[in-house]
Amino acid sequence: MKPPGSKTKATVWVVENGQMRSRFDQLATEEPLEIRLVSPKKTVAVTMRTPGTDFELAAGFLYGEGVVSNRDDIQRISYCVDPDVDGEQRYNIVNIELREGLSVDLSPLERHFFTTSACGVCGKASLETLGLRGYPAISKELKVPVEVIYSLPEQLRSAQRVFSATGGLHAAALFNTQGELLSVREDVGRHNALDKLVGSALLSDQLPLNNYIVMVSGRSSFEILQKCLAAGVPIVCAVSAPSSLAVAIAKEFGITLVGFLREERFNVYSGKERLAIAST
Amino acid sequence: MKPPGSKTKATVWVVENGQMRSRFDQLATEEPLEIRLVSPKKTVAVTMRTPGTDFELAAGFLYGEGVVSNRDDIQRISYCVDPDVDGEQRYNIVNIELREGLSVDLSPLERHFFTTSACGVCGKASLETLGLRGYPAISKELKVPVEVIYSLPEQLRSAQRVFSATGGLHAAALFNTQGELLSVREDVGRHNALDKLVGSALLSDQLPLNNYIVMVSGRSSFEILQKCLAAGVPIVCAVSAPSSLAVAIAKEFGITLVGFLREERFNVYSGKERLAIAST
Repeated sequence: MKPPGSKTKATVWVVENGQMRSRFDQLATEEPLEIRLVSPKKTVAVTMRTPGTDFELAAGFLYGEGVVSNRDDIQRISYCVDPDVDGEQRYNIVNIELREGLSVDLSPLERHFFTTSACGVCGKASLETLGLRGYPAISKELKVPVEVIYSLPEQLRSAQRVFSATGGLHAAALFNTQGELLSVREDVGRHNALDKLVGSALLSDQLPLNNYIVMVSGRSSFEILQKCLAAGVPIVCAVSAPSSLAVAIAKEFGITLVGFLREERFNVYSGKERLAIAST
Repeated sequence: MKPPGSKTKATVWVVENGQMRSRFDQLATEEPLEIRLVSPKKTVAVTMRTPGTDFELAAGFLYGEGVVSNRDDIQRISYCVDPDVDGEQRYNIVNIELREGLSVDLSPLERHFFTTSACGVCGKASLETLGLRGYPAISKELKVPVEVIYSLPEQLRSAQRVFSATGGLHAAALFNTQGELLSVREDVGRHNALDKLVGSALLSDQLPLNNYIVMVSGRSSFEILQKCLAAGVPIVCAVSAPSSLAVAIAKEFGITLVGFLREERFNVYSGKERLAIAST
């Protein structure tokens, strides 16, 4: 069993000039990494990462948190070989053995815990254990002309007021199926912009958003898809690329996932049946 | 006392055509928000966010985590008015009162805790309490010609192998003061790319990085600066905008912070004395 690669192969549908064609593509791999100390035995972090140089990631994380301060503080770094861990998940767990006698204060780690929607249950393989069950089913009935999708990025840009002033914000926007912009929220954090958008819908009793389109300004990742899934959003569009895990979730739950959405051109990674191309 | 705004005013030095001039600028505000349940009394999240529509952010977060499922599950949302909380921090804490009798399972929240370097100590004002003390002092001696800074983005781009293939990755790169690229790491998460870079330096016993330049592919935020500070990096460059908190940390600790670095042009937000412009 080899470690997972940093790239994941995929088939993507390119929509351009009112036509849809498939081609092979590569996605940035996104998978959870659990960082464990061996003694005291403790999971200190779970992060959604791109596999590759995982030992460096674990070491750098512990350094940033002040747990280790130099090379010698680390006795050994290895992938998990516990027999109760699935073969293919072993490369998603890194065990770090600290130098014997190193006095470690893990309390800053507790304080520095920070929430996102990422999973905390590595060592298990399926999406089920990523905490993605129990959500409302995604509506299958929606169908939207590709011209509506084409029209979204320009509207999002015009609506990004703070971004225009600062160049420093992510945005998430809600559109109806006619392509009308209903609301937009901005934040330095992508997940926050989307939480604000969904929170706004919740507070105005609009959930689930099963007749709406959500567009985000950056890339789409695990947490973007998780939040859209929870809100029942059937069509998720992003200005940039999706991660492998974003595509996996979209496929599993039947969400239409659009990426690289620029004027008159986009890629569809999942759920292309919701997009209507006028026959010419 | 008013809530903080989504934009923060700043003076920035624009370096262009070998000249440096100052101008006023606006930054996206980044501040911690603590989301608290009133009963059971519990902090459920601390997130670095841009102030504005904080109630929506809190509501959307709780919805995404499955704590509430509709408007009526929330009895009341308010900013914190505890008398022991600093006036200016009150708008960084949101209290949520759930509907009486709502049965809440908070264990998924624990599972979903996710680490970054963000603070977990809202309700206090100073950078000191953001966990940013005890780091090695940043070297003041370094001086780098602006031409070296100009040369970084093109080198970073050429080195981003997985990005080229997928369009979906952040990168962090280490350069020496001659502008030579020493290492580059990529990841779906910005903080992970930087952790990998620092971890690589740790494992090869190169820390602290007080004679080096770090460049990141995206924006610079609290967590980018915190990790560079921990690693002793005196010059931090980013392709895009910094947040207000990134600039505040750079100033407090004397880090040179460069943003909007494109060919032959960049902004300096802090520490311009490390950048040498040849007299013409």
